[in-house]
Amino acid sequence: MKNVTEFEKMLKTAQPGDSIVLANGIWLDSELLFEAEGTAEKPITLTVEEKGKVTLEGNSNLRIAGDHLIVSGLVFKNGYTPTNAVISFRKNREEMANNSRLTECVIDNFNNPERQVQDYWVTIYGKNNRIDHNHISGKKNLGVTMIVGLDTKDSRANNHQIDHNYFGPRPTYGNNGGETLRIGTSHHALENSNTLVESNYFDRTNGEHEIISNKSCQNIFKYNTFFECTGTLTMRHGNETLVDGNVFIGNGKPSTGGVRVINETQTVVNNYHYGLTGYRFRGAFVMMNGVPNSPPNRYVPVIDSKVNNNTFVNCNNILFGAGSDAERSQAPRTSEFSENIIYNDNKKDIFTIDDDISGITFNDNILGKNSETSITSGFINADIKLEKNEQGFLIPTSNKIKTQIAISPKVATKENTGTTWYSKADNSIALNSGNNIKVEAGINTLYEIVKKSEPGDIIELEEGGTYLLTKAVKINHPLTFKTSGKIKATILFERMMAFEIQNGGSLFLENITFDGAKSPDYAGNSVISTSKNSMTENYKLFIDKCEFKDLIVNHSFDVLRVSKGTFADTISIQNSTFKNITGSIAALDKETDDIGAYNVEYFLMKNNSITELQGAALRLYRGGKDESTFGPFLEIDHNVFDKVGHGKKNKYKSAISLYGVQETDIKNNIFKDSKAIDMYLVVGEPIVKVQNNALNNSEKLIVSGDQKYFVSNQWNLTPKFSDESRYTLSADSPLKGKATDGSDLGIITQ
Amino acid sequence: MKNVTEFEKMLKTAQPGDSIVLANGIWLDSELLFEAEGTAEKPITLTVEEKGKVTLEGNSNLRIAGDHLIVSGLVFKNGYTPTNAVISFRKNREEMANNSRLTECVIDNFNNPERQVQDYWVTIYGKNNRIDHNHISGKKNLGVTMIVGLDTKDSRANNHQIDHNYFGPRPTYGNNGGETLRIGTSHHALENSNTLVESNYFDRTNGEHEIISNKSCQNIFKYNTFFECTGTLTMRHGNETLVDGNVFIGNGKPSTGGVRVINETQTVVNNYHYGLTGYRFRGAFVMMNGVPNSPPNRYVPVIDSKVNNNTFVNCNNILFGAGSDAERSQAPRTSEFSENIIYNDNKKDIFTIDDDISGITFNDNILGKNSETSITSGFINADIKLEKNEQGFLIPTSNKIKTQIAISPKVATKENTGTTWYSKADNSIALNSGNNIKVEAGINTLYEIVKKSEPGDIIELEEGGTYLLTKAVKINHPLTFKTSGKIKATILFERMMAFEIQNGGSLFLENITFDGAKSPDYAGNSVISTSKNSMTENYKLFIDKCEFKDLIVNHSFDVLRVSKGTFADTISIQNSTFKNITGSIAALDKETDDIGAYNVEYFLMKNNSITELQGAALRLYRGGKDESTFGPFLEIDHNVFDKVGHGKKNKYKSAISLYGVQETDIKNNIFKDSKAIDMYLVVGEPIVKVQNNALNNSEKLIVSGDQKYFVSNQWNLTPKFSDESRYTLSADSPLKGKATDGSDLGIITQ
Repeated sequence: MKNVTEFEKMLKTAQPGDSIVLANGIWLDSELLFEAEGTAEKPITLTVEEKGKVTLEGNSNLRIAGDHLIVSGLVFKNGYTPTNAVISFRKNREEMANNSRLTECVIDNFNNPERQVQDYWVTIYGKNNRIDHNHISGKKNLGVTMIVGLDTKDSRANNHQIDHNYFGPRPTYGNNGGETLRIGTSHHALENSNTLVESNYFDRTNGEHEIISNKSCQNIFKYNTFFECTGTLTMRHGNETLVDGNVFIGNGKPSTGGVRVINETQTVVNNYHYGLTGYRFRGAFVMMNGVPNSPPNRYVPVIDSKVNNNTFVNCNNILFGAGSDAERSQAPRTSEFSENIIYNDNKKDIFTIDDDISGITFNDNILGKNSETSITSGFINADIKLEKNEQGFLIPTSNKIKTQIAISPKVATKENTGTTWYSKADNSIALNSGNNIKVEAGINTLYEIVKKSEPGDIIELEEGGTYLLTKAVKINHPLTFKTSGKIKATILFERMMAFEIQNGGSLFLENITFDGAKSPDYAGNSVISTSKNSMTENYKLFIDKCEFKDLIVNHSFDVLRVSKGTFADTISIQNSTFKNITGSIAALDKETDDIGAYNVEYFLMKNNSITELQGAALRLYRGGKDESTFGPFLEIDHNVFDKVGHGKKNKYKSAISLYGVQETDIKNNIFKDSKAIDMYLVVGEPIVKVQNNALNNSEKLIVSGDQKYFVSNQWNLTPKFSDESRYTLSADSPLKGKATDGSDLGIITQ
Repeated sequence: MKNVTEFEKMLKTAQPGDSIVLANGIWLDSELLFEAEGTAEKPITLTVEEKGKVTLEGNSNLRIAGDHLIVSGLVFKNGYTPTNAVISFRKNREEMANNSRLTECVIDNFNNPERQVQDYWVTIYGKNNRIDHNHISGKKNLGVTMIVGLDTKDSRANNHQIDHNYFGPRPTYGNNGGETLRIGTSHHALENSNTLVESNYFDRTNGEHEIISNKSCQNIFKYNTFFECTGTLTMRHGNETLVDGNVFIGNGKPSTGGVRVINETQTVVNNYHYGLTGYRFRGAFVMMNGVPNSPPNRYVPVIDSKVNNNTFVNCNNILFGAGSDAERSQAPRTSEFSENIIYNDNKKDIFTIDDDISGITFNDNILGKNSETSITSGFINADIKLEKNEQGFLIPTSNKIKTQIAISPKVATKENTGTTWYSKADNSIALNSGNNIKVEAGINTLYEIVKKSEPGDIIELEEGGTYLLTKAVKINHPLTFKTSGKIKATILFERMMAFEIQNGGSLFLENITFDGAKSPDYAGNSVISTSKNSMTENYKLFIDKCEFKDLIVNHSFDVLRVSKGTFADTISIQNSTFKNITGSIAALDKETDDIGAYNVEYFLMKNNSITELQGAALRLYRGGKDESTFGPFLEIDHNVFDKVGHGKKNKYKSAISLYGVQETDIKNNIFKDSKAIDMYLVVGEPIVKVQNNALNNSEKLIVSGDQKYFVSNQWNLTPKFSDESRYTLSADSPLKGKATDGSDLGIITQ
């Protein structure tokens, strides 16, 4: 059977016990409706000639409807669904699949090219369905990867079993809608779903804050492994959840979390947590405050919940009453946190108490020898040792620990989940991992060499060479450009950009001068731009020891100009000079829909000299009030800002404009003859540190936004931001200075 | 010769007198460098096997360098140049073409797919080059169509001749950078170019304000025809220009203009103007104010200029001292306006005097019998008759007119310009010009029918039918959807949009209900969206007698959501109802770069009922201070706004948010329990009329921006905007009202 027409013909005559076999090859633009009636003894199977040799590509999808159906061995890749699901357990709202099984199927990078257009990959409806041993990896566009839908009665109390699936990496989405599994919605939060989620492996499913979003009642999560996942298993809505025997491995990676409890009668037991560093809503364990008489779509207060017998090794944060604010004012009640073991090598007190904890009973919890907590009872210290068990987990032992800390052999591993025949290898290629290629100076030599380059290659420019680009260089895989030797090569360009980072591209620039003298006489040039189209792949940009000068042919000439629908994991700008520029260094303010999206996760600017820049050096914007994401994270350290922000067309009227940034760390900088840092604090308890900066004839910091974040005065640490008597400035260029505590300000020569 | 390699080989051995002939067929991705040395007697020619049968497509372009070269017969289409020019008269900055000719070449819709990425189509350098009989049509991306470059000495005093070219339609670009011909730049404004521009036909070259931007000295414009062009021949920089014997035909089309004079020693004589309606900078004739001691890139004051013997028939505006403001404070001096003939059927006084005109001598100008002017001398009235001459022009005659008003036989026509072998026919297809196609109710029937539709088709929905879309309908040509019969069909949709207007698409929706009940539970849905990619083609959207309801599954659910880099000629929303919506009706605020771009030219909203809309009904934004464009134009008439703008996520905190709109006409509306109209006036002398609107428990109009535009109080006409005693409201839904002058407010039942 080789095409959809034949499939449909065969399906018409299919009898219980039959198998419908898709022939080897590529099935392009194939939308399959597998609608049939099998029996418990004789199911009808949709499968493939040879596993791994049948791929559904282009605009393809699958709907399953009927009883006792089995789907096995299908691979979806190189395309995306034109509907809202790749695989759906229903034909339409009325006709769904029951008693059916989806097994050993693969959905791999089957992304809508529009990052901000939503779809699901698997939507589960009906009852008594099993979804097992599937390989589901690389979702990068908007939308939860897998959902259990409860929108009609026939899908509730469903007894679905989701087991032994491999959920492969899902990168940071940069907005709400990056969950990997959601069961229910706020609209049906109080319905029973009775779904069992067992022995699944979540491998860096980092889409957003909620790895799993539980939004219905009586679901069970057992023996799942969460490997280096940023976010938590979140009991967002619904009650009577059991979270038992799961493993959370953070390995010290940022923003990794464990379990977050909201709602009533939740049970969290026997879970093992290692190296989780996340804070606030992505702590290793989080029990939230609720909203009194909460509507179902807000935060139902925690009551009657148990958190017992869990183990936390080198985890940084456990929170009670998290999210406490004027609306979420109800602390947890009639709940328990007992017989948990908490060990940490470095951090003494990992507990954050955000509200009244008198409603939580603490019993027989064991802390490591050097650990402490402000919780006054229910904790003892013990001399805990860590021992690796045969599964490779570091297990606390001590004679004070009576219960054996056992991790079930049923726990998910990369090996016992997914399929045996579809590779779980990580194919991403790092910057600077390829070959060195020398490129001669001249016209378009850079353009030509890039066409021949391989991902990860390092392109070496001639010392002191001049490179003119009459065409923009398209970067569609990771590439490095550098001058070897002391005298930087110079790049000039006649198009509106020298480099355009396209989907899949990342860029490292080292020891190169960029000169805007040949750029077109239009507003809106940039040295580097992203694709103007949406990019599903997150990109990285590193700039080190470069010089950007005379970007002045017309107004609004930026160094980096990005587009809506693009997202950088990291932008790092270090040891570089910027001089005589009409625009900004980085304009990361393109997500103006105010629905929680933003353009960069980590932005780092270190040891740069910025002179005569008319725009705001940095424009970083994260609008909306959604709490599903982590960033942006910002560090600005040891830079000199000299005559920055005074351009008439600088609409932000500031040297640095920040809106909704989640972590801000601005230190050791010199601001001379410059406009202010202007920050608007909103959503997600932003952490702000502005310290040890020198202001010389520059505007003072402007802070606005949500007053509740103003309390800690984190931007007023010594030496006082505007206290000129407390630092000294050199007369040289670049400016250098010393704070009175002896620390350096501004550029540090390397 | 069939490919670039063979071309290059042949070129190496080319001798004076040789012809290099491109073989018939498609030359894909062919970048040709025609570098050779001919002689005056024996030029070297690059031509084609058969004219019209050789096309350069994909990423193709041509550079010409050397002496005595002729290029003839090349056609560029279906692609775009990867560099900044399609055809360039130089190899690089140093090596250019001289004494060479580009003739009978075609560049047709050869647009970069990114609307906002710049290129030129023809760049002329060197000296003594002739560019004649070329067909250059359909430029839609950023950048002047043809330039004469003066950036090196070898390109100045160039004696180029640009003649008998056909410049085909260039639609409104919606930002600066839509000029058709530019000679020089502000950087070289005082250099002589000595370029002759003669007998060229400009056919609706409407890119922006400046059809021709003269930016150097001693150029001559003779016998050119400007057919229905929005904008003017502008003497933007440079002196000693001669504009002689040109014809400007407006035919009453909006924004059509004539000649705009800035700088010194300009001569404008013997030009004929018909039916030009443009005002301000696109008047039939405009003499601007200048900046005292102006830098070359601002406005050099007009002195020693002559405007004589020109004819203006049914033109609406002639301005002296235009642009007068605090900066442009220097009125014209030692100039003359004499022996011109001004006839207008309808408008009595077509003169606008924006500053002191004592520096202009007026002599022997003749006005029609019923015309008048406030200029006190130099005008006489005459009983003018119009007679059609053999060329078809309406020529004023009167016994007071001594000079024969002759139009040179050398004047450009569509026939005597361009090539004889490449069609100048207009291929655009209008909405509602195709077949009627009936489509059954059901799932995705609309999606399927559209795949089979032809441009202009009308798709008829079943009366009362229900249409569910599980896929977004892509509109890539003009299509109409309508219900025939009284009971509207209903469209529900499961994707983030029901319709997506793609490049080349336009949409007319009539008598249809849109219901958001099945839309995905994510922020940012819309009923209609544009492509998220850039669109080079302008689109049209008409909505008539439709209903939009319950767009509430999540926040920010808009009716129309557009993307950056898209531009609508017209959006018209009439006789429709909008109820229970979390977002906006039209969010036209995506051009946030503030470089003068915007999303729509004409926006019309008439006779609609809008109830319980959480966002701003309209968000219309035109940022930046560029003066090169005309719109947006806005009309909001006879609507009811009931409970509009109160959503927490309405960042504009208003019912209608306007920024930089050029013409605003808001009248006969009722605002009940609604937020304010909020308008920011900036750039281009915005015209604002807000009158005869009733406010009931609604916020008052908020006006901010540039104070100089506040003088006329145009938003405070009677009945006063907030004077509740002066109108009466019905208790019905939709609300109706009567102003005290008896006129209707709100919805007019049809």
